Amino acid sequence: MVDYDIGKVLYESEGHKVVWLGWDEKESGGAVQTNQYLIIHNGKGVLVDPGGVHLFSRVVAVISNYISLDNIETIFFSHQDPDVSSGIALWLGITKADIYISELWIRFMPHFGIIDEKRMKPIPDKGRMIPYTSGKELEAIPAHFLHSPGNFAIYDPLSEYLFSSDIGAAVFETDKYLFVEDFQAHLKIMEGFHKRYMTSNTACRKFVQVLRKKNISAIAPQHGALFSEDHVDEFLRWFESLKCGVDILDQIEA
Amino acid sequence: MVDYDIGKVLYESEGHKVVWLGWDEKESGGAVQTNQYLIIHNGKGVLVDPGGVHLFSRVVAVISNYISLDNIETIFFSHQDPDVSSGIALWLGITKADIYISELWIRFMPHFGIIDEKRMKPIPDKGRMIPYTSGKELEAIPAHFLHSPGNFAIYDPLSEYLFSSDIGAAVFETDKYLFVEDFQAHLKIMEGFHKRYMTSNTACRKFVQVLRKKNISAIAPQHGALFSEDHVDEFLRWFESLKCGVDILDQIEA
Repeated sequence: MVDYDIGKVLYESEGHKVVWLGWDEKESGGAVQTNQYLIIHNGKGVLVDPGGVHLFSRVVAVISNYISLDNIETIFFSHQDPDVSSGIALWLGITKADIYISELWIRFMPHFGIIDEKRMKPIPDKGRMIPYTSGKELEAIPAHFLHSPGNFAIYDPLSEYLFSSDIGAAVFETDKYLFVEDFQAHLKIMEGFHKRYMTSNTACRKFVQVLRKKNISAIAPQHGALFSEDHVDEFLRWFESLKCGVDILDQIEA
Repeated sequence: MVDYDIGKVLYESEGHKVVWLGWDEKESGGAVQTNQYLIIHNGKGVLVDPGGVHLFSRVVAVISNYISLDNIETIFFSHQDPDVSSGIALWLGITKADIYISELWIRFMPHFGIIDEKRMKPIPDKGRMIPYTSGKELEAIPAHFLHSPGNFAIYDPLSEYLFSSDIGAAVFETDKYLFVEDFQAHLKIMEGFHKRYMTSNTACRKFVQVLRKKNISAIAPQHGALFSEDHVDEFLRWFESLKCGVDILDQIEA
């Protein structure tokens, strides 16, 4: 049983934790459901896609159960969408963290509010390593055009978790669940989103090629449910064969 | 000579005006420059991509030179980017306008702040007409994946202006100018942006096919300079032959 209010530790080893930051069961206002993640390494935190203004107070409260805000050193935004990064000015205000985001979006962030440019760390198109204080590193893996032109997934080699941004996202209708159990059933709330938001099979295939070289213990998307190790291959096979976006543009605009 | 502080009437006929809302010469903070437009028809206003929090007070002040905020009935957002739509809660608060945006982004807008859902008018993928009070209409033309998966240009059949969102955008380096004079020189600040942010030549070609059936007196993008009638064909020929995004993905990630 998952307690949606306080989140859940998904992975734990010595000095290392991956935490999912819960859902607000009362959340509505027509907003699409989102997942936020916190990685804690040797007492320091990395926030993954902490989200917009709408969720800010709830996410701050949940984080505080796991780590002091002062110990958050890094915030990662996979892309520029409102549900991902519109809280940037609030997050800069409440933490001392640096913000990592694609170099494509650096000059767009000030449109959300007042931004301290010195704390903005652009991720180049080919990706980069993002350091933990301890010398270990996270890897920002290019996932461009899936959907955003400047989009990254984050791979944590310690937990082998892949934080996959919109890739693998599902749009819950009635029941919510934290991990996918029946892949075929899950496709019903995942397929439509991917066909319409992802831009081309070319981009899907290129991303999967990179992932095949990694050990992946779970895929953690920004919307919907996570994929445990049992479903990783099934997901990658489905994703690399997906026709989407410009592949089916006539159909989309019909 | 253009007065950047007060904007400029670009087109005027009986009961109809197209206004460009200026630039803040002092604006900086590393934010990418943007254009906002106001269409006034029989005393009622349509705002096109009025922009984020960052610009709000300046844009409100400029609008007030041309029309009372109470007379703004329609706000159009071409897509979900921060520089386009992050001011949504402020604009809903200060006007009585309805908001038109792709149906793909309706559920993402509440992440910017409190949104009155009843005033949100989703644009379906195939586009739609957007009415002026007088019975005349603007046309929302699909421009998906250029760059956003749910993106629209707006065509005003009275002025024959095309408000083209990021299509035709340029990133000014030092000198700014309102209309393109030398197309080849302008390419230098336009080409890199389009190759990287636009997602595929398939999408470029499909968009140009639709435009060839319209009379276009000017192309008005959300960044950079406008194209007068003299340069419209030149722009469309260049754009339909552009290789971009997933067409050159290996090059982008190299």
